[in-house]
Amino acid sequence: MTTPARTPLPALDVPPRTRPSNYPPVFAARMAGRQKRALGDAFGLSRFGVNLTILAPGGESALLHRHTRQEEFVYILKGHPTLRTDEGEHALAPGMCVGFVADGLAHHLVNRTSEDVHYLEIGDRAPEDRASYPEDDLQAAYSPEGWTFTHKDGTPW
Amino acid sequence: MTTPARTPLPALDVPPRTRPSNYPPVFAARMAGRQKRALGDAFGLSRFGVNLTILAPGGESALLHRHTRQEEFVYILKGHPTLRTDEGEHALAPGMCVGFVADGLAHHLVNRTSEDVHYLEIGDRAPEDRASYPEDDLQAAYSPEGWTFTHKDGTPW
Repeated sequence: MTTPARTPLPALDVPPRTRPSNYPPVFAARMAGRQKRALGDAFGLSRFGVNLTILAPGGESALLHRHTRQEEFVYILKGHPTLRTDEGEHALAPGMCVGFVADGLAHHLVNRTSEDVHYLEIGDRAPEDRASYPEDDLQAAYSPEGWTFTHKDGTPW
Repeated sequence: MTTPARTPLPALDVPPRTRPSNYPPVFAARMAGRQKRALGDAFGLSRFGVNLTILAPGGESALLHRHTRQEEFVYILKGHPTLRTDEGEHALAPGMCVGFVADGLAHHLVNRTSEDVHYLEIGDRAPEDRASYPEDDLQAAYSPEGWTFTHKDGTPW
């Protein structure tokens, strides 16, 4: 653990997370085009996370998912991702934003363009959070030790 | 209270807060150059706030302050504000960010340029938060009813 910064930094100077995804390997492979910089963690913040995430062409932000407790917010800095939810699709552009309440729409971003997408994603760290994945045989539970992933029938991955 | 949005919005389409500041009037007057759009609230988020804040030339983000419980994070979208803390000053530029742990450095942003500054500010909504103001005769306590401001000796404003 490096010492938290106390003075401002260019966000792109924060080193990207080296582990590409916490998902089981079959799903983690789908996140190969995604790079996250944990900006909030770099300053020692613990009550919420702020990531600068870059999606290469073809990349996706996450599997289509919703949380039971965590709220999420996304602000587009660069590029033109598509937001997919269980209600449809929306074209995004720099300066656009969207928030997701707990137990609301399932959602993820996909980059169908030939240019990188840069966005900020913010989420609180709600205890006893769970995540569900309408399109995949996966469910997840959050504890102080991190996320635990199982099949939808509860058997381990 | 308007119905929370469920679909993405250009952040600048969220109406600015009409009450310019919660500070007592003598301090609120110093916030005349500041305009805040409550982006997270627009989507019904309650566990943290995300504001798009615009500082006109001469504007400041807040009085120099620190929180006892709330964490804060700032990401510069446009313009060149100056961060003042109790340890010194830092020149900021688009793409730079800074986070403030609870009971850390007192801080605020000032716009000494002739161009507007746009930034995102994020903070959690910590119960029993208090704010202190090293340069002003002011202290503040947060409750479910909002902020209560007093002089440093505890007498009401």
